[in-house]
Amino acid sequence: MKLYDTPLAPNPRRVRWFLAEKGIADLQVVTLNLIAGEHKTPEYLAKAGLANVPALELDDGTVITESVAVCRYLESLYPEPNLFGRDPKETALIEMWTRRAELLVATPFMLGVRHTHPALAALETQNPAVADYNKEAGLRACKVLDRRLAESEWLGGARFTVADIIAYVGIDFGRMIKLVPPEDLSHLGRWMALMRARPAARAGMPQPQPA
Amino acid sequence: MKLYDTPLAPNPRRVRWFLAEKGIADLQVVTLNLIAGEHKTPEYLAKAGLANVPALELDDGTVITESVAVCRYLESLYPEPNLFGRDPKETALIEMWTRRAELLVATPFMLGVRHTHPALAALETQNPAVADYNKEAGLRACKVLDRRLAESEWLGGARFTVADIIAYVGIDFGRMIKLVPPEDLSHLGRWMALMRARPAARAGMPQPQPA
Repeated sequence: MKLYDTPLAPNPRRVRWFLAEKGIADLQVVTLNLIAGEHKTPEYLAKAGLANVPALELDDGTVITESVAVCRYLESLYPEPNLFGRDPKETALIEMWTRRAELLVATPFMLGVRHTHPALAALETQNPAVADYNKEAGLRACKVLDRRLAESEWLGGARFTVADIIAYVGIDFGRMIKLVPPEDLSHLGRWMALMRARPAARAGMPQPQPA
Repeated sequence: MKLYDTPLAPNPRRVRWFLAEKGIADLQVVTLNLIAGEHKTPEYLAKAGLANVPALELDDGTVITESVAVCRYLESLYPEPNLFGRDPKETALIEMWTRRAELLVATPFMLGVRHTHPALAALETQNPAVADYNKEAGLRACKVLDRRLAESEWLGGARFTVADIIAYVGIDFGRMIKLVPPEDLSHLGRWMALMRARPAARAGMPQPQPA
């Protein structure tokens, strides 16, 4: 299997973090430079179908994009530690929190950054009204995570799961434009410190291409 | 189990369609009036955590929101016909197309409608720039679905799956503001006719509360 990765974007970081939590180190990693347009070459588009990174190329040539689909597939091959749920009810609650984190917080943060940061103007026709709308929506939704984390140690329940990765990577991407959750969200702050302390947080950070 | 439903919004329609495809008819359905704010009462918020519909309340009191999480949970109880995939690779490709349909088309169409339609002004501070951005992004992404449907009978592969439900319900919601895919996307047009012809398309439409 081969993983197409890139250091700047949040979605590939989700997968790197997931790999680190699982201890998966036997994937071939190909690092693409988005600013140079390496995700828009005819060869890459023929593989991935869209100019999307990450993508996982299986040995039979099948290519899976979409970070959560890639992670769920990897969970089937490397089941421990379990990060998607051990039974239908736990799986549903983890997916609920993964989707809430993604749709309410991570996507607005990502759009806020893409429509604001000068270095990303090559990727997007930046629109200040879209930037403002998303920044406000994302910050407002941080309260939803804070309320959850007041009653639960982790987003998906009593243990660390993929929901935590999606939420944290989304929020942390906001730092590119100094978009950070309000400090009075103390439960969110407690959990962010827990996340930063995980060894995989560092592995998920931008890293040079392996030899 | 009890399903909280509402007739106007697209996400509950996904679940109604899914139930109809499975032939599930033994759920208690509670219909909420969003315009009257029945999803914002203290009782409902205490259950669902957010003012989100649909929500599935299990017999042990657990409440699952997020339409795709609700459907995946129902698939575990009612496995046939299979709509999420029979093995890890098929499951990954169906999730990839479900996410592409949702993130690239259904969400922009939904935001385009919510920020435009006068009847929905009660739900959202409508922003014309956000409406335009999302309408344009959603229409542009219809080409991604058209290209896929040029090579595959259904979005997820050779058979109908949950990816088709997410894509079709999202596009069909656009009709509220006459937002429709360009007619020259003939593969998308072929597939939309297939979708409209399914018996579940009608069951998924707004319907009165059962006695």
